[in-house]
Amino acid sequence: MIWNEEIECMSREDIEELQLKKLQNILKYAYDNVDYYHNKYDSMNIYPEDIQTLKDIEKLPFTTKDELREYYPFGMFAVDPKKIIEVHSSSGTTGKPVVSGYTQKDIESWSEIIARGLSMMGVTDEDIIQNTHGYGLFTGGFGIHYGAHKVGATVIPISTGQSRRQIEIMEDFGTTVMIFTPSYGLYLAELAIEEGFDFKNSSIKSIGFGAEMWTNEMRKEIEKRFNAPAYNIYGLTELMGPGVGIECSTQEGLHISEDYFYPEIIDPETLKTQGENTKGELVLTNLEREGMPIIRFRTKDISSITKETCQCGRTTSRMTRITGRSDDMLKVKGVAIFPSQIEKALLKVNNIEPHYQIIVTRPHLMDEIEVKVEASKELFFDEIKEMMNVKKKIEEYIESEIGLRVKVTLVEPKSIPRSKGKAVRVIDTRDIH
Amino acid sequence: MIWNEEIECMSREDIEELQLKKLQNILKYAYDNVDYYHNKYDSMNIYPEDIQTLKDIEKLPFTTKDELREYYPFGMFAVDPKKIIEVHSSSGTTGKPVVSGYTQKDIESWSEIIARGLSMMGVTDEDIIQNTHGYGLFTGGFGIHYGAHKVGATVIPISTGQSRRQIEIMEDFGTTVMIFTPSYGLYLAELAIEEGFDFKNSSIKSIGFGAEMWTNEMRKEIEKRFNAPAYNIYGLTELMGPGVGIECSTQEGLHISEDYFYPEIIDPETLKTQGENTKGELVLTNLEREGMPIIRFRTKDISSITKETCQCGRTTSRMTRITGRSDDMLKVKGVAIFPSQIEKALLKVNNIEPHYQIIVTRPHLMDEIEVKVEASKELFFDEIKEMMNVKKKIEEYIESEIGLRVKVTLVEPKSIPRSKGKAVRVIDTRDIH
Repeated sequence: MIWNEEIECMSREDIEELQLKKLQNILKYAYDNVDYYHNKYDSMNIYPEDIQTLKDIEKLPFTTKDELREYYPFGMFAVDPKKIIEVHSSSGTTGKPVVSGYTQKDIESWSEIIARGLSMMGVTDEDIIQNTHGYGLFTGGFGIHYGAHKVGATVIPISTGQSRRQIEIMEDFGTTVMIFTPSYGLYLAELAIEEGFDFKNSSIKSIGFGAEMWTNEMRKEIEKRFNAPAYNIYGLTELMGPGVGIECSTQEGLHISEDYFYPEIIDPETLKTQGENTKGELVLTNLEREGMPIIRFRTKDISSITKETCQCGRTTSRMTRITGRSDDMLKVKGVAIFPSQIEKALLKVNNIEPHYQIIVTRPHLMDEIEVKVEASKELFFDEIKEMMNVKKKIEEYIESEIGLRVKVTLVEPKSIPRSKGKAVRVIDTRDIH
Repeated sequence: MIWNEEIECMSREDIEELQLKKLQNILKYAYDNVDYYHNKYDSMNIYPEDIQTLKDIEKLPFTTKDELREYYPFGMFAVDPKKIIEVHSSSGTTGKPVVSGYTQKDIESWSEIIARGLSMMGVTDEDIIQNTHGYGLFTGGFGIHYGAHKVGATVIPISTGQSRRQIEIMEDFGTTVMIFTPSYGLYLAELAIEEGFDFKNSSIKSIGFGAEMWTNEMRKEIEKRFNAPAYNIYGLTELMGPGVGIECSTQEGLHISEDYFYPEIIDPETLKTQGENTKGELVLTNLEREGMPIIRFRTKDISSITKETCQCGRTTSRMTRITGRSDDMLKVKGVAIFPSQIEKALLKVNNIEPHYQIIVTRPHLMDEIEVKVEASKELFFDEIKEMMNVKKKIEEYIESEIGLRVKVTLVEPKSIPRSKGKAVRVIDTRDIH
């Protein structure tokens, strides 16, 4: 079923006409209501009325995550905070996290976008969706939740964790749709088989997965284990949350809700806009957003775009799955992590050296992080108990910073290799590219 | 501000007339649509049309948690599962957990009920609510969330945990309303003071707390530390979630939304209905609920009720804070736990004896549970490593069962005292009565 046929099957001409109108409106709105855009456009001598075609968007400056961070917490809001009814936030990095604000209308837009995507996955009001995405400041859980409400499906807001209970519920509730990160899905499948769950005769008919990078092999493995097709969901907190792009049953790229998002691909080095089917960094613009309109956001995610009509009949642009990043962000268990966050946590602890290494592995389907930190000479020759205290403290500070528990290993002073240029801070042995 | 003055300040006569009409409707609805009521009422030869006055409700049988459990998962639903858009669940006990189902209309009712309560706490659309209640199958997080949307306040759905970030957000976002369990609130306050947070000049003006038993001393301590009034929120998943009763600024009992819930107090021994201001077990009836109407539910919570008009002007019945339980349930960190759940987990592990003791303490404001389990003779003389494995396994199984991490201590065979009658399974040293 196509949720909103009028929009999703609109001719390219009509959609571009609609996009231009919306782009002109939101640029004026952003310029009038957000200091950041006002000052930046003024200083560059470019104004909303200069945008007369969609291609004119290239005249506008990009917005980066670092810039959004400078306006922490509410500086990017285009409305009186009274009109904001919900906030979410990306995980904090070196500086402050990015806060995303939503008005009532924005929550309705988000619901509509996800309702379209769930429909692409074959979800109707008869389905039972087990949503294992985390609820909280993270947008993953709520986006799916609101969209499920819109579709009229039953949502089980179980969130991540309690894996044995997840399996009990899959069985007892007759779950028809699973939502998970690929690695958690693979872990659940394995546990389920151990517990005797029968995937061949289960009621699961569709899977939505996202918030992590994945390979086609991982998708095939998930589909084989769950005996159901798995669809990719992409999004990011800064622009709204999950739902920017969602795969249909054709599984050839993620459909972008182009009446809400204007996608571009740029070369991350030259910053020039790329044509169709060329890989580069995805840049996104909110075409409709009251709370916090974001213009030309550099996602750092590597993708490409096609405007060809899909076999499913939808005419919306499709992006390919994300195959990399143009910066040093890590995604572990679905959470975005920068080495700088680990560094920030380490700086709070005494008796250690500022040398560390982050080792990301996937020993058994689930991501794991180990952080190796050099102990100070004094600490290294101190009692074991004191070392344990320091180790525990580091683990707590890192968890507080990134929201994930990591394993910390204190190593001998000077045992982490030094390098002359950029230090090799991250060793990622997961095969996700 | 009174959110719904028409209802909240209705004369006793009018409210009782409305309640009777609603009671008659919901009884007919439940009888016609739920096998459990149909069969039970038939077998007792009592029919919805026999209820001609509110007092006639006493003719109806009670509904117990054990009965609801028998209809796991969806047997108590009064509508086609297609109409259910969301499910929640109490934590599982000996048998299966109780599942609560909501239609679109039920979610709207829930929002209305919480909107009234937030208004009692002085919350308006200008407020920023930091909701530290967990989101997930637990109803705590969502109830407040939906109510906040209804009021038009800004909700920060941060959920429990990441305590340092909670404090950063209190400060950076200018949180005006905190929602927490009393023990988590006290813990946060202490941590905040350590981190240099200035409560005297903070923007926090109101606190909602619930999901745990508390004493007046705890409330005073919370109010002192946060420098803001704290209001009690009561509810339970079976009937809806939080919001059954909420305190107003007078802080003399929790106002019950009597157009949604019909409260009774019974003597848990004789099962006779008690008069006003007499302590006993709270029994609740949904007066309006499409998805899963619950009639005369024995909450096991000890309270009393007054119908006197409150100083705030509201005429709705008020219940006193819960001062105990009429069964062996424990509330730890806001989670309902039965010793039988621990037992169920232990039965899955080899090499231990079925003798255990649950020790609940509050060493440092936060609840902690230790479970002492007897090792088998073989295990006890085995290698330390094997004991550690078993201990870890038990911890995992218990966590999977109750949703909380506990400390497990393996003790010498026969070291846990045996008793002839009912074993003393629980040692609760918290002072909460």
